Amino acid sequence: MVSERHPRYRSLALRNKLVRGYEKGITSAHGLIAHGRGEAFDYLLGEKTTENALEATKVACAYLLTAGHPVISVNGNTVALAPEEIAEFCTITGIPVEVNLFHRSVERITKIADYLRACGVTDVMTGLDSVELAGVASERAKVDKRGIFAADVVFVPLEDGDRAQALTRLGKVVLTVDLNPISRTALTSTVTIVDEFTRAMKNLVGFAKRFQAENSQYRLHTLKATFNNSENLKASYAAIQRRLQVLSLR
Amino acid sequence: MVSERHPRYRSLALRNKLVRGYEKGITSAHGLIAHGRGEAFDYLLGEKTTENALEATKVACAYLLTAGHPVISVNGNTVALAPEEIAEFCTITGIPVEVNLFHRSVERITKIADYLRACGVTDVMTGLDSVELAGVASERAKVDKRGIFAADVVFVPLEDGDRAQALTRLGKVVLTVDLNPISRTALTSTVTIVDEFTRAMKNLVGFAKRFQAENSQYRLHTLKATFNNSENLKASYAAIQRRLQVLSLR
Repeated sequence: MVSERHPRYRSLALRNKLVRGYEKGITSAHGLIAHGRGEAFDYLLGEKTTENALEATKVACAYLLTAGHPVISVNGNTVALAPEEIAEFCTITGIPVEVNLFHRSVERITKIADYLRACGVTDVMTGLDSVELAGVASERAKVDKRGIFAADVVFVPLEDGDRAQALTRLGKVVLTVDLNPISRTALTSTVTIVDEFTRAMKNLVGFAKRFQAENSQYRLHTLKATFNNSENLKASYAAIQRRLQVLSLR
Repeated sequence: MVSERHPRYRSLALRNKLVRGYEKGITSAHGLIAHGRGEAFDYLLGEKTTENALEATKVACAYLLTAGHPVISVNGNTVALAPEEIAEFCTITGIPVEVNLFHRSVERITKIADYLRACGVTDVMTGLDSVELAGVASERAKVDKRGIFAADVVFVPLEDGDRAQALTRLGKVVLTVDLNPISRTALTSTVTIVDEFTRAMKNLVGFAKRFQAENSQYRLHTLKATFNNSENLKASYAAIQRRLQVLSLR
C-alpha cells in the first residue's frame, strides 16, 4: 500500500485500478502498456487538468447533450479506471454505452458488459451484432449496428487512431480523451480532451449537471461553434514544452 | 493480430513481444507499464533513432570494446524485446550477461537465464551469488560478485535511477538506453542512448562488427574522449522541442 501523502499517490492508485482490472479479465496486457504511455504524458502535463483540457471537456459535453444519437464507446481501460463516473454520466444523460475492444474477445466483451451493468449502466451494447468499418486494420473495425454505426456523435476515450479516422470519415462528430496530444486520435477528432480519463469523466459529469440545470441550448451551440481543436492541441504542446523547460533546468 | 498496414505496426509489434514476455513469466506487470512510458517518449522523438542517439550508441560500443571487464545487465523487458540482438552482440564481443531484476524472484531470474541460453547467450550470470550495493532501495541492489560488482564498464539498458547512481558512485562507467532524457538514469550515466531498445541493440551490433573489422584502438579512444553526455541529452531534449514546435505550427 502506498501512503496517500506520497506525491504520486493518485497516479499509483490509478495504476492499481488497472492491474485489478487486468486480474478481473477486464483490461488486457496491452491496455497496461497503453496506460503507461498515458502516464508519461500526464507527468509531462503536470498530472493535473489544464485550462484548455477543461474547456475541451465542456465542449465535448455540449456535443453529447445536443446530439441526436450519441454513444459512448468504452474499452477495458476506461471501464477499469472510471466505471462509477461512466455510470453516473449515463444515468444523468441517458446516453448508451457500447463495448468496443481493440483486442477483441467475446469473453472480455461479456465481462466488461456485466461489470458495467453491476456498476449501474443500464443501456450497454456489446457490438456482437456488428458491422465492419472500412479502413480500420484491427478488430475495432467491428461496431454495433444500433450503436456507433448509427450514431451522429461518438465519445471514444482512449481510442485507436485508425478508428478515430474511420469514424471521422463517416461524417461523425468524434470526441475523445487522449493524454498524447500528437496521436492520430488527438489530431483527427472533433474535440480532444488532453487529460487523464478519470479526471476528464469527473469534469464531464459536473458539466452535464450544470448544463442540464441551466437548460440553455444557445449556450451549448455557442460552445460548439467557438471551439477550435487545433488551437486546443497547440495549448497542450505548449504546456508540455513549458514543463520540459522547467525539468531540464533543474 | 494487428495488420502490417497499421501505421503503428512496429510499435504494436514491440508491445506484442512484451505481452508474450509477460505470458512466459519473463516480464513483470510493472515492466509492461514502464514500456508504455518509454513509448510516450519515443512518440515525442518521432519513433526513429536521432543523430545524437546514433552517436551515443557508437560511443557506448567503443566503451564496451575497450573495457577490461565489461558486463551487460539485462532485465525482463530487455530480454523480451531483443533476445536475438543481445545474443548476437555477446557472440561477437564475448561480453557476458548478468540477469538483474527490479522485481526480483529466483523463479523469474531462472526463466530469463534459461531463455537467454536458448537464444544463444553462452555466458549468463544470475546474480544468485550476490553482493548488495549501498544506497539502492530495491532488490536491484543485489549484483553478481563476478559480474557487475567486478566490472569496470556496465551496460545497463532500461535501468532504475537508484542503481545507475549507485554504480556511478562505485566509479564504474555506466552505459544505458533510456527513452526518457530527463530520467535520473539518463542524467547519471556516462553514456545515455536516448533510443528505443531494439533499435539501439541493432545499431550496437552493427558498430561492433564495423569496429572489429577496422581494428583501430585510436578510433575507439577518440570516440570516448570527445563525447559529452550532457550535450547529448540536450540534443534529445531539443529534438522533442522541435517536434512539438513543428506540430504546433501545423
